[in-house]
Amino acid sequence: MRPIITAFAASPDRGRGLARDSRVRWALEEVGQTYDVRYLSFAELKEPAHRALQPFGQIPTYEAGDIRLFETGAIILHIAETHGGLLPQEAAGRAKAINWMFAALSTIEPPILELESTRFNDRDKPWGAARTVMAEDRIRTRLADLDGALGDAPWIAGAFSAADILMCSVLLRIKGSAMLEEQPRLAAYLARGESRPAYQRAFADQLAVYQRLMAAKG
Amino acid sequence: MRPIITAFAASPDRGRGLARDSRVRWALEEVGQTYDVRYLSFAELKEPAHRALQPFGQIPTYEAGDIRLFETGAIILHIAETHGGLLPQEAAGRAKAINWMFAALSTIEPPILELESTRFNDRDKPWGAARTVMAEDRIRTRLADLDGALGDAPWIAGAFSAADILMCSVLLRIKGSAMLEEQPRLAAYLARGESRPAYQRAFADQLAVYQRLMAAKG
Repeated sequence: MRPIITAFAASPDRGRGLARDSRVRWALEEVGQTYDVRYLSFAELKEPAHRALQPFGQIPTYEAGDIRLFETGAIILHIAETHGGLLPQEAAGRAKAINWMFAALSTIEPPILELESTRFNDRDKPWGAARTVMAEDRIRTRLADLDGALGDAPWIAGAFSAADILMCSVLLRIKGSAMLEEQPRLAAYLARGESRPAYQRAFADQLAVYQRLMAAKG
Repeated sequence: MRPIITAFAASPDRGRGLARDSRVRWALEEVGQTYDVRYLSFAELKEPAHRALQPFGQIPTYEAGDIRLFETGAIILHIAETHGGLLPQEAAGRAKAINWMFAALSTIEPPILELESTRFNDRDKPWGAARTVMAEDRIRTRLADLDGALGDAPWIAGAFSAADILMCSVLLRIKGSAMLEEQPRLAAYLARGESRPAYQRAFADQLAVYQRLMAAKG
């Protein structure tokens, strides 16, 4: 069953690969699953047809037969459960990898999203600069702990897994920042993820969408 | 295998049931699985012995044989996968319930946590009040969409499931707020969750810990 995902017709990150369809594309590329993409305008995201699939009016979604999902974590877990190679087969290793999938989304990403929210919503406010520093400090604490957990291992939960797709995708949001560069093992971990052929195909595919859009605009 | 979880020796919420061990207790009560609890002081949370199990120095953790987990979402998914009653058996329904587990943690809880962070970190700052209003507005948007998704159904993904444990636990953070009361179907949904005997046992058990602590302090 060839799945259909949704993505931005015009990604607000201008093809940097931060929109969450990139995470799903990466997982699908890792397992060798071809897929179709339905591109949606910002207006279409908020229309009833899309909200029936995604109540919060966001991307991505995932449809394959009677499976209909809209949370990136659930989509990637589903891909990992229905294809080989993204989760260990034995129970303890599988549970550990799923634990790190949740850690990427529930422990590492929220303070990064709060920093982005501060930069976006508070940038014109008198408190913008001070609150940015506070948000960065919270991220630094989490990254130091994550560095300790990764140690000198290549991947976060044994062999490469769905947890690395999510964790690297979260770290991409702060790629090149002082916060990440202060943790050279984490920066190298992210580079290791980005160097995977499946990631590069996923990145190129989402970038091509943006480049075609720019070319069409002349 | 009787699992061992960890919890605060002195919960910062004073027994209101918001610490995340309550979510795990609720899931264990729903499936009728007895468990042990190891209580940790704030100092013990940050010590190497605990960090070997929980790299971020938080609670809860879950140990059962060679299964060792620290993300609440992963713990509840593991309990649901190894016991009956918290996930549908057929593939589409199971995937949908897992999708809503992620939605609780990745879509609904982050703006609520950002509000709590604003109230805690920014309360003495000149921008505290203005930023609180901004954070509440973002929560209102998410709750309106969640209300649309729930509609008049009793539970978020068909029959009661692990998704309801997480979603109700997230909504508990804003119980009694104007934001939640403006959505009477969501307020009723939360009340439905709280009325479950398994939730009440879980709540009573965590409250008793706090009450014993207070009694011991005289």
